Amino acid sequence: MSVPIPRQIGRELLKLARRPKPAARSFLTSESRQFVASPVRTFNYRSAFRSAEQKASALRPSSSRRFGPLPVLAAGGGLLTALFTVFQPVSGSPVASPDDVPAVAPPEPTNVLANDGLPRYRLSEIKEEHGPKSSNPWVVYEDKVYDITDWIPAHPGGEVILRAAGGSIEPYWDIFSIHKTPYVREILEQYCVGKVHPDDLEDGRPRMDGIEDPFVADPVRSPRLRQLTSKPCNAETAGQDLAEHFLTPNEVFYVRNHMWVPVVEDATGDSHGITIELPDGDVRTYTVGELKSRFKQHAITAVLQCSGNRRKDMTEHAKQDEWAAWEGVRLRDVLADAGFSFENPPEEAQHVQFSGLEAYGASIPIRSVLDPRGDVLLAFKMNDLPLPGDHGFPVRVIVPGTVAARCVKWVNKIVISDEESSTSWQRRDYKCFGPNEVKDLDWDKYKSIQEMPITSAITRTRLKPEPESKAKAKDAAGNHLIQIEGYAYSGGGREIQRVDISLDNGKNWDQAKLVDDTALERGSKAWCWKRWTYEGAVPLEHEHEGDDEHEHEHDEAKTTFVVKATDDAYNTQPQCYKSIFNLRGNLATAWHRVEFDLAKCHERVQAAHKKESRGGEMRE
Amino acid sequence: MSVPIPRQIGRELLKLARRPKPAARSFLTSESRQFVASPVRTFNYRSAFRSAEQKASALRPSSSRRFGPLPVLAAGGGLLTALFTVFQPVSGSPVASPDDVPAVAPPEPTNVLANDGLPRYRLSEIKEEHGPKSSNPWVVYEDKVYDITDWIPAHPGGEVILRAAGGSIEPYWDIFSIHKTPYVREILEQYCVGKVHPDDLEDGRPRMDGIEDPFVADPVRSPRLRQLTSKPCNAETAGQDLAEHFLTPNEVFYVRNHMWVPVVEDATGDSHGITIELPDGDVRTYTVGELKSRFKQHAITAVLQCSGNRRKDMTEHAKQDEWAAWEGVRLRDVLADAGFSFENPPEEAQHVQFSGLEAYGASIPIRSVLDPRGDVLLAFKMNDLPLPGDHGFPVRVIVPGTVAARCVKWVNKIVISDEESSTSWQRRDYKCFGPNEVKDLDWDKYKSIQEMPITSAITRTRLKPEPESKAKAKDAAGNHLIQIEGYAYSGGGREIQRVDISLDNGKNWDQAKLVDDTALERGSKAWCWKRWTYEGAVPLEHEHEGDDEHEHEHDEAKTTFVVKATDDAYNTQPQCYKSIFNLRGNLATAWHRVEFDLAKCHERVQAAHKKESRGGEMRE
Repeated sequence: MSVPIPRQIGRELLKLARRPKPAARSFLTSESRQFVASPVRTFNYRSAFRSAEQKASALRPSSSRRFGPLPVLAAGGGLLTALFTVFQPVSGSPVASPDDVPAVAPPEPTNVLANDGLPRYRLSEIKEEHGPKSSNPWVVYEDKVYDITDWIPAHPGGEVILRAAGGSIEPYWDIFSIHKTPYVREILEQYCVGKVHPDDLEDGRPRMDGIEDPFVADPVRSPRLRQLTSKPCNAETAGQDLAEHFLTPNEVFYVRNHMWVPVVEDATGDSHGITIELPDGDVRTYTVGELKSRFKQHAITAVLQCSGNRRKDMTEHAKQDEWAAWEGVRLRDVLADAGFSFENPPEEAQHVQFSGLEAYGASIPIRSVLDPRGDVLLAFKMNDLPLPGDHGFPVRVIVPGTVAARCVKWVNKIVISDEESSTSWQRRDYKCFGPNEVKDLDWDKYKSIQEMPITSAITRTRLKPEPESKAKAKDAAGNHLIQIEGYAYSGGGREIQRVDISLDNGKNWDQAKLVDDTALERGSKAWCWKRWTYEGAVPLEHEHEGDDEHEHEHDEAKTTFVVKATDDAYNTQPQCYKSIFNLRGNLATAWHRVEFDLAKCHERVQAAHKKESRGGEMRE
Repeated sequence: MSVPIPRQIGRELLKLARRPKPAARSFLTSESRQFVASPVRTFNYRSAFRSAEQKASALRPSSSRRFGPLPVLAAGGGLLTALFTVFQPVSGSPVASPDDVPAVAPPEPTNVLANDGLPRYRLSEIKEEHGPKSSNPWVVYEDKVYDITDWIPAHPGGEVILRAAGGSIEPYWDIFSIHKTPYVREILEQYCVGKVHPDDLEDGRPRMDGIEDPFVADPVRSPRLRQLTSKPCNAETAGQDLAEHFLTPNEVFYVRNHMWVPVVEDATGDSHGITIELPDGDVRTYTVGELKSRFKQHAITAVLQCSGNRRKDMTEHAKQDEWAAWEGVRLRDVLADAGFSFENPPEEAQHVQFSGLEAYGASIPIRSVLDPRGDVLLAFKMNDLPLPGDHGFPVRVIVPGTVAARCVKWVNKIVISDEESSTSWQRRDYKCFGPNEVKDLDWDKYKSIQEMPITSAITRTRLKPEPESKAKAKDAAGNHLIQIEGYAYSGGGREIQRVDISLDNGKNWDQAKLVDDTALERGSKAWCWKRWTYEGAVPLEHEHEGDDEHEHEHDEAKTTFVVKATDDAYNTQPQCYKSIFNLRGNLATAWHRVEFDLAKCHERVQAAHKKESRGGEMRE
């Protein structure tokens, strides 16, 4: 029986990290999985593991783990009680000494089989004795049992691993598929302490009915949201909701969760706490109620844009870029209150790390917080309503001008640090490699996506209807008039100043009219998308005029509409995807092209007339 | 004889501004004239004239102009004495009342000719009685004499017009060719008071020998600078100086002057004053000596990049993008000392306007100054030496990450305002229109170029020399090895994170190696260009191997090398010029392409071997 020696963990990890990198299959998130069906690629764990190793060795002064108090996280609908162990390595607040932790004697092995020498454990006893509250948590994988006690401080994903304690880790790995690699299996194997009792196995595996679904308390979503995945929820707004609203309504605002929606018992959310940790080790905790009452509240309107926005443009149109009005307190004000010096920020204050209740974590460079016009908020409200569960209730971070992945929801911890958040969402998921860089990726080579590059898209095209008639409007030369609308956006608060439209695939250009939304825009910089409209004549090369103008048109004219935008730093979009291709399909910001087929458009127009008696339109 | 009525100026200007816009020919600066030989285009003066009109009407409470003290600007080499009238409209400091200004009686007309009823004046009397110091300044244009007294406060270019007082305005209009339009002639005609005496005319025009050359005191420049125009000086660094130095040496740093180099008598520059005007009207003047002694000095390394950098790439390569180490005091610190509140900046504090001694003016949005990491400097030193005359001695503004046109040299006035500088350099010269926008330009439509978009360029390519041999290095497959180097840069402090190189015109890509210059980089953000190098094998499709490898090669292989860069906001460059074409050739940031012809390269290599016994290289 192989029981790992805690002091060896660091060395083992380092050894692992330095090994030649074997191919790893599919570490994609559910989102990127939509993009590339079954890629084979390699990557290295160096970053996460170097960090994990440092953490592990720094935190083992006495080869023991020190636990802080064990707060009850949540119990929702009587169905789910999840307990998280809050680990406080650098905190100045009192922690229980190792001696305070009651020693838990391992249960007597139910049975020891001769052929492998490993003890067998009942699932019930594992659940009872080695759950998240236990000082000696275990997990089950396939038919084996693992004591993960000594691994937790080194776990790159942090304490979320405790969520799985007392049961099978498989459903979590189904979510965090990054674990399905030989590396992780190798690490896990070091902690094997036994096997599941044969009475709990079906076809050699434990019965899965004992596993609590972490998504059970996820909110009910609007049927108008187009759900791409449900666990975690990844849903996008339908085209008509985008086109018809200025601010996207909360219930149809796109949802991009990395895990489940954490349940907060307090209906107001006011008792939820956020812990702030400064570079000098000072820790201060604020409740949401305190934040609301003690600090001035600010409102901004800002786009939240997913780095995968327009990813499907490489094949078809998709959209995860919407904006809302956010209200809350400035992170600057809270940090200043907590003792952070904006006059003389310490050298090591380089990043602001955020963690959320469900263990998601990310960070931003500190520049946005140092900038008095950076408008980084701890937001409680979304479009004048309390944050919905899917959007971070009771409080989320809003970093305007920055990719939505940094706007951590359900935030409960903020750390000012000299390094980025160590999560894979920070250090690996949101990066773009060169178009040729498809294997042996060095994840440390490029920076995490923060400010978004300029982009634009066509959200709607339609033949201009003639008022009070079924006819389509034409110009003097007999060309059909087309109406196009869309949005443009650039990160970092850079304002869109020009939107160029081409009706002939980039040969000729004209300028769209920028919609004046200034009355609704709030904030120190241009944090919102810019809506635009365009009306022009479609140049038709082969138009056949029938006898009856309105019924017998058989135009075969096809063309491509193109949009590209320019921001106030005069950055513009790349012309095509080939030059910015990257495996994950991040930052698909090439000129947006929409095929236009007049014949099809006519059919739809006629169908629409018959059905709805309204002007024809074509959605892309 | 038509003498304009001062109170009518405002109305006349407004009337002019509201007229339909006739075509205006060539308002190009000397620089942009290099780009488009003789364009015919129209523009509107609305912006400049609206501002001029407001200024004119606001400043005429008693239909009289009020002059402040008349400081002696400069006297250089005994050749040039230039006097500027400092006009102080909103200053709280004491100004002379109109009554204090001694009335100057117009000289008796020397002669009155019957056919036009206009008096004739001798050039000598105009010079003596109506020069820059006079309270009643006149100018000469062709054979006519104009009393510009009442026009000065409304002049969009400000007080620089006084420079021409007492003589012909023509040499100035040759520099500021914007004046050569029907508009300006119409305005001028209103102020006509007579004609030049026939004895001072040659072929109907005044002798030009009486005109002082404002460029007479310009410094002697290094012969290594490639001079494109001399008055004003527009000179660029030669390729070898760029490639061989990390910091561009001062004497070969590119020079881009809009006017002459002002002469500062004080050799230390310490008595030179900078006046700061706050939104509440408070005015405070600091001498350079005071700035040096009272404020902490900071050093940054930053690129100065002309908006026309790579303009000639549309046809051939050109470069005005170099970096230097700058040292001075932070504008933030000085503004705070002057009483500007960074805690609660007033709403009207939107722009920071800078004026220089030679009357050049420009402004920046206040965001760079509000940002504690904006690093905006009042710089006294360039590469550890006092600023050279061509680069702003004794003090210039350095706005890192921003186009060089805002880094005003010889700065003597800083105004915090709710609007941009009213100069044409701010409101017209540095903007980019869409590729289709070539006439009837509305200059108010787009923003002034401030932060620069991402760009990159190849500065050198060469066949890799084999060490200690005349041969060129080849890879295992027999392909020639090529060495390429260049730079990449993005504005706003956005760091270059990737440089992609293609040796086959964009079909395949690889990454260049970024040179680690961090030891030399100083400042809060990425203000410097990023140098890069690349080594790769040139894929040859038609290589003929001769008997003697080194002497009989007749490769006909031609290809195109391409570079494109990506910054930390993942902005990248446009693929080609067509989509970003603009008449002035600003911001030529498309992928940089360099044709490569192996045959020519061989010839050069062989020539170089014979001549210099060193490795072959090809400069672009």
